[in-house]
Amino acid sequence: MTDQDASVTTVRVGLLGCGTVGTSIANLIHRQRDEIATRTGIRLDVTRIAVRDLSVDRGIELAHPAAEVFTGDAMAVAVADDVDVVIELIGGVDLPRTLISAALDAGKPVVTGNKALLADHGAELFAKAEANRVDLLFEAAVAAGIPLMRPLRESLLGEPIRRVLGIINGTTNFILTKMTEEGASYDETLAEAQALGYAEADPTADVEGFDAGAKAAIIATIAFGVEVVADDVHHEGISTITASDIEYATRSGHVIKLIATAERVGEADEVAVRVHPTLVPLDHPLAAVRDSFNAVFIEGGAVGELMLYGRGAGGDPTASAVLGDLIDAASNLRSSSYARFGPLPRASVQAIEQLIDTCYSLTILVTDEPGVLSKVADAFGRHNVSIRSMEQEGLDDEARLIFITHQAAERDVRETLAELKALDSVRDIGSVLRVVSS
Amino acid sequence: MTDQDASVTTVRVGLLGCGTVGTSIANLIHRQRDEIATRTGIRLDVTRIAVRDLSVDRGIELAHPAAEVFTGDAMAVAVADDVDVVIELIGGVDLPRTLISAALDAGKPVVTGNKALLADHGAELFAKAEANRVDLLFEAAVAAGIPLMRPLRESLLGEPIRRVLGIINGTTNFILTKMTEEGASYDETLAEAQALGYAEADPTADVEGFDAGAKAAIIATIAFGVEVVADDVHHEGISTITASDIEYATRSGHVIKLIATAERVGEADEVAVRVHPTLVPLDHPLAAVRDSFNAVFIEGGAVGELMLYGRGAGGDPTASAVLGDLIDAASNLRSSSYARFGPLPRASVQAIEQLIDTCYSLTILVTDEPGVLSKVADAFGRHNVSIRSMEQEGLDDEARLIFITHQAAERDVRETLAELKALDSVRDIGSVLRVVSS
Repeated sequence: MTDQDASVTTVRVGLLGCGTVGTSIANLIHRQRDEIATRTGIRLDVTRIAVRDLSVDRGIELAHPAAEVFTGDAMAVAVADDVDVVIELIGGVDLPRTLISAALDAGKPVVTGNKALLADHGAELFAKAEANRVDLLFEAAVAAGIPLMRPLRESLLGEPIRRVLGIINGTTNFILTKMTEEGASYDETLAEAQALGYAEADPTADVEGFDAGAKAAIIATIAFGVEVVADDVHHEGISTITASDIEYATRSGHVIKLIATAERVGEADEVAVRVHPTLVPLDHPLAAVRDSFNAVFIEGGAVGELMLYGRGAGGDPTASAVLGDLIDAASNLRSSSYARFGPLPRASVQAIEQLIDTCYSLTILVTDEPGVLSKVADAFGRHNVSIRSMEQEGLDDEARLIFITHQAAERDVRETLAELKALDSVRDIGSVLRVVSS
Repeated sequence: MTDQDASVTTVRVGLLGCGTVGTSIANLIHRQRDEIATRTGIRLDVTRIAVRDLSVDRGIELAHPAAEVFTGDAMAVAVADDVDVVIELIGGVDLPRTLISAALDAGKPVVTGNKALLADHGAELFAKAEANRVDLLFEAAVAAGIPLMRPLRESLLGEPIRRVLGIINGTTNFILTKMTEEGASYDETLAEAQALGYAEADPTADVEGFDAGAKAAIIATIAFGVEVVADDVHHEGISTITASDIEYATRSGHVIKLIATAERVGEADEVAVRVHPTLVPLDHPLAAVRDSFNAVFIEGGAVGELMLYGRGAGGDPTASAVLGDLIDAASNLRSSSYARFGPLPRASVQAIEQLIDTCYSLTILVTDEPGVLSKVADAFGRHNVSIRSMEQEGLDDEARLIFITHQAAERDVRETLAELKALDSVRDIGSVLRVVSS
């Protein structure tokens, strides 16, 4: 930090990586620097940017000659004497883990949006930040510009949070919204999402719930103060959702969303974290979250129901989150303070098989002959799965039975389905969807 | 602050006032103190509570004998040696202003939820906090437990915010929701809200927009970094909204909400802040905010569209906000830091007459005779108010004309209406509603 005059402190920023988000943040800093200086007394100055390819012109407005700012040596930026705060935007896990560790050990606050890294090694890095008494801030890692990590870490730190439900993957929400509103098939809609740039050529990370699972691990860690990693999160994707699942959801007053759920299920360190397609009642605030928007719905013992909604991806919204963290880190640096992490004991994570209080929507294809429904109902009954509603739809010589159950245990539902599958008159088990309970 | 052992800091809390919110916060602290101590290393200890009537049993769980904690002397609590952080929950303006000033001057951080005080004297108190280098936190002053002030002050400090739209009065949102969903009249619904305790016996502060206006002044001050006071805010209430206004809104794909708008209209210090009933398109996220819920919709140049949604009133949701601030103030105290305020220059506030870019919904009652529509349309045309749509409804010998305009200037609309009023064939001017523009 350099004091230029009594009232303004200059904070020098080093960027690791300069793709879409890095370019957005550099330009946003340039555009907002005078207003930030007026309002906070802090002048942000981007002094170093580490990039892989020095020959690319990124169209960034800088206060210094580009030749002095750009470098190919990321580690040199992470520990540079003329860098006060480090922003990591490289992506991946191993290299940023090494760079962030080095920056923290050099006493530099770090801002990152790297969800994969934090979902796997968050506790290690948070402990390192705490040991070095510097900030490690990561608002951009989950739901981009939606203020979520800071409210959870600060505003709601004392709140007895019971459950967090999130639509935290924009690609899958875009696909499900199109399928619902236009009656299109999954394959058609995925192709459209790919053409629009909302989905990758290989969409696995999004559509199978890996991306949402990593974010859910971070949310659970921060909301409940226990370490949850990506591997702890049970995830199911949306690629098996059919147009008829969507139709039935609509008919029964629901909409299908890919919901990440993080909840306390017992003592302080016992949590359940899962991502799966879920029937959401139409009057629930999450049902109105359309297109590629994200939203996180928080249920607290005192605050009641909260929802935080916005753009969960994109260069500018992500840069907005990074800028907020950067100003916070710079202010803390000026006052020699930092945002503390409490201890993060390893969570005791409930396996999906131990779920006991969820309602299910189950689709079963049967031969259309007398007595079938009775056999099916009998299997439910013997496994203590109580049926709330049933709809039968004839299809030539088959019938499609769609059941919604009362609250049941996952184990009992699985046993019921295994038994049904073995029946001659059951042709196939269709979708198995859980229903958001209130 | 007293250090009991190396790892836990005790922070002593003094409460000024102990009504619904005070009782909720004292009990919430008691219930959550162990978990807060584990996660933050801070043990909160309520040592003093100032109340008007010492004889009331409030059913509060305390760690100290009640006789040592309760006192009738609020000023003694505000400056007490055994109080580290002061929470003001008295309400009103003059007494809390004196008490908060004294506490800040005594070097004590203050947490308050007093919107009336902050809307009138915020800048003075923020300057005093800054001069004493202590926190003055006020999340509870607007929209209770919804994290709003902290995201605006921290996460979005560098964000180029263009406009904030808020449903920030639960009573009027409850009334408008009932009118919309049940077709009831304003008077019937107000009576129901009063019976349920959602509206006061004298509902003026809520239904005429005073309450929302004070909150809008605070939002504008924090979002734009300029001083806006309650008197700067133009406000219109909902008491003139009729069942037929609501019907027309529904028919035209809108819902009527009491919306607070705060927007930048020119240079950094030029803002417009107003509260009035507004037609909100059904696909806007604010349209889905029902019953007594609050929501604030933020439009930023980088972050895009954000919405923060939740319970805007009530003892527990308000206590949740106070607890978040209290933990923040206690953490800052431990690290000898505080949340700074930048300078708050007086805003240049645009008068409502200077609005130039809003669409209007105008209801005009005319005699049902040939040539009337042409005269009315002529008046619009001569004042440069362009009509987007018109609907005519016959009522015996009258007709009700409902116009929606393109973007027009408030002045031109007012002149049009004045001219129409003077026409023989115009019986009355009905509701004048603005429409949310995108």
